[in-house]
Amino acid sequence: MAQGHLSLLRCMECGNTHQLDDPVYVCGKCGGLLDVEHDLEAIKPRISRALFDERLGALDQPYNSGVWRYKELVFPEAQDTGSFKDRGMTGGVTHAVMVEASGVVCASTGNTSASMASYAALAGIQGLVFFPFGNIAAGKLAQSVAYGAISVQVKGDFDASLALVRQACREFGIYLLNSVNPFRLEGQKTIVFEIIQQRRWQVPDWIVLPGGNLGNTSAFGKGLKELYDVGLIDRIPRIAVIQAEGAAPFYQSYKDGFAERHTVKAHTIASAIKIGNPASYIKARRTLDLTNGVVEVVTDQEIVDAKAQVDASGIGCEPASAASVAGVRKLIASGVIKPGDDVVAILTGHVLKDPGVVMDYHNGTLEGLQSPYANHLRTIEPTLAAVQALLNQEKVPTR
Amino acid sequence: MAQGHLSLLRCMECGNTHQLDDPVYVCGKCGGLLDVEHDLEAIKPRISRALFDERLGALDQPYNSGVWRYKELVFPEAQDTGSFKDRGMTGGVTHAVMVEASGVVCASTGNTSASMASYAALAGIQGLVFFPFGNIAAGKLAQSVAYGAISVQVKGDFDASLALVRQACREFGIYLLNSVNPFRLEGQKTIVFEIIQQRRWQVPDWIVLPGGNLGNTSAFGKGLKELYDVGLIDRIPRIAVIQAEGAAPFYQSYKDGFAERHTVKAHTIASAIKIGNPASYIKARRTLDLTNGVVEVVTDQEIVDAKAQVDASGIGCEPASAASVAGVRKLIASGVIKPGDDVVAILTGHVLKDPGVVMDYHNGTLEGLQSPYANHLRTIEPTLAAVQALLNQEKVPTR
Repeated sequence: MAQGHLSLLRCMECGNTHQLDDPVYVCGKCGGLLDVEHDLEAIKPRISRALFDERLGALDQPYNSGVWRYKELVFPEAQDTGSFKDRGMTGGVTHAVMVEASGVVCASTGNTSASMASYAALAGIQGLVFFPFGNIAAGKLAQSVAYGAISVQVKGDFDASLALVRQACREFGIYLLNSVNPFRLEGQKTIVFEIIQQRRWQVPDWIVLPGGNLGNTSAFGKGLKELYDVGLIDRIPRIAVIQAEGAAPFYQSYKDGFAERHTVKAHTIASAIKIGNPASYIKARRTLDLTNGVVEVVTDQEIVDAKAQVDASGIGCEPASAASVAGVRKLIASGVIKPGDDVVAILTGHVLKDPGVVMDYHNGTLEGLQSPYANHLRTIEPTLAAVQALLNQEKVPTR
Repeated sequence: MAQGHLSLLRCMECGNTHQLDDPVYVCGKCGGLLDVEHDLEAIKPRISRALFDERLGALDQPYNSGVWRYKELVFPEAQDTGSFKDRGMTGGVTHAVMVEASGVVCASTGNTSASMASYAALAGIQGLVFFPFGNIAAGKLAQSVAYGAISVQVKGDFDASLALVRQACREFGIYLLNSVNPFRLEGQKTIVFEIIQQRRWQVPDWIVLPGGNLGNTSAFGKGLKELYDVGLIDRIPRIAVIQAEGAAPFYQSYKDGFAERHTVKAHTIASAIKIGNPASYIKARRTLDLTNGVVEVVTDQEIVDAKAQVDASGIGCEPASAASVAGVRKLIASGVIKPGDDVVAILTGHVLKDPGVVMDYHNGTLEGLQSPYANHLRTIEPTLAAVQALLNQEKVPTR
């Protein structure tokens, strides 16, 4: 680690390094993915479980944030981050501010853009979002527009939008906040920090999550390795990545022993993971190596049915999130997850992100899919007799 | 307080009392609003700022909840509440479980139902929701259906739906979870507890909130009075209630010195406060007395413009919430809120609750309203030239 700095950026393709205050987020030499490397030996004596536990009740910035609570392992030398609270985007926007970016941009199926638009607004930087054409979930589109980002539909799919935006960033010098940005992953990895802290530092056997662009997969592996290296945990859980059957290039690569980097034309109802050429492929592969991980696929029918059940539990999630739960089920059925294993599955998005899918499922109007757990909306006259008929029909006990 | 119990229910109309484990939520004698009375003298030695501060970092139930953290002032003798986390509904559902309700029901413009459906599912009780006919925000309707409540549109407005549901509860013995339920308000009052605790027990001059059915208004006054009575705060902030011009019966009553309880046929774009006959009228009036409070009205145009600005700050809210901000503006303009006053305004609902209003505002298609802060969705071809034209048009600096 050069000149006493606690962190640097290293290219995962060519090994070239950058300082953190360089205005780059991909390798300046070869364009490859950068990895944030922290000087864990220097950081280790400054942190402990007790320190992070103390900060749980913090009222003041930055430690009242679920990301900046772990500041020493996220961005040890960052300025104060102000009001930003999200994971991932708070890391990325902090760096954009540090390097005085004039505008920030992302291609998005809707969640990245909602988050970027919000934190860009909080930081006073103009946001610019490139959506694939059509089929953006209503809530997600509304968030980008409401938060004031310049919101653009590109005539193409997500992979085309991301390729265009990466090219535009190189050409016009705007700052990219897709998950190829390594500071995004520094924020996202705090999800595993918080999971393990909330479990009072007891490590589960498995952490299961949906896989699309593979940013979370990449971040989780890095975070777990760092926790292990600084001695905050004594073993590493296995990661299981769940892809939708129609958008499973990483699964294909996993199946052939990573002999080839596959890409596909993505098709799935789970729009957040409808990605055919995952940007974080290399980093996600590292996660599988680090954690003895596995990759599984689930069908759209399995996804919407798992979602209906997660929803009906009173918690709820967006379609992509339910892939985790459908995936756990499949991995138990195939014997990969064993009876008695301690499993954490991640729900990545709120049910309110995609109200259209909810109503289509429960109305039975999802194209090509069944709705075995449907809950139909009823209409009644405003009379007691109508209420009584409803209660009888629904078998709600009355006195 | 009878027989050493720390709390009882007292009718605000006839003075009749009930024990907390009685299966009632309105007066068993006259049907009037019940108030939860805590034996604050007995509770006072058991609590302190330090106790509540210690619990801020709690990982375990029940103190890891923003409601049950203040358990001694909410429901001192409640059983453990399991997974419930919301305000208001966690109080109400806890009582429904205590009295072994077979089903729970509410009339709702969409937020109460979302919350009830979730906590009913978590508690394993069947939920039943009565919506007014038409115009329920997409996110809110989706939540009720997704969380498994029996969801019914009643051919009538909110006030008709509430009247019907109250009648049905009396007739058929199902458990009512509208805010006439006093345990709802016990949970909701923790909003002011948390505000003041987050401010390190420094009391603001004003707390400003939207007024519809007046449950929050009622709960806030009660909570502030209790904090004052047990000595956790040394003065009481003033409450300002903001109603939409087309749904302002409480404002009318305020203006005539509460000589009359007004009702109106409600019309406003802010569906969460589109209520013409507020159920908590008496309790809200008590809040105004206790806090030297005021009531103000704002137009729908003021609401949607304030919302566009709250949204563009990167925070966002639903339409009704923006009434708070529009109201603060109006009260400053009229000199009621003075320069230098310390003001907290409440945003009651997430921007994702009502994505339809967002898109209609920014598309300029809100009937009868202007969109001065509109942010239009654009479409471009997937080419660098199209991106460059966009950046020029939007004046985003490039290198």
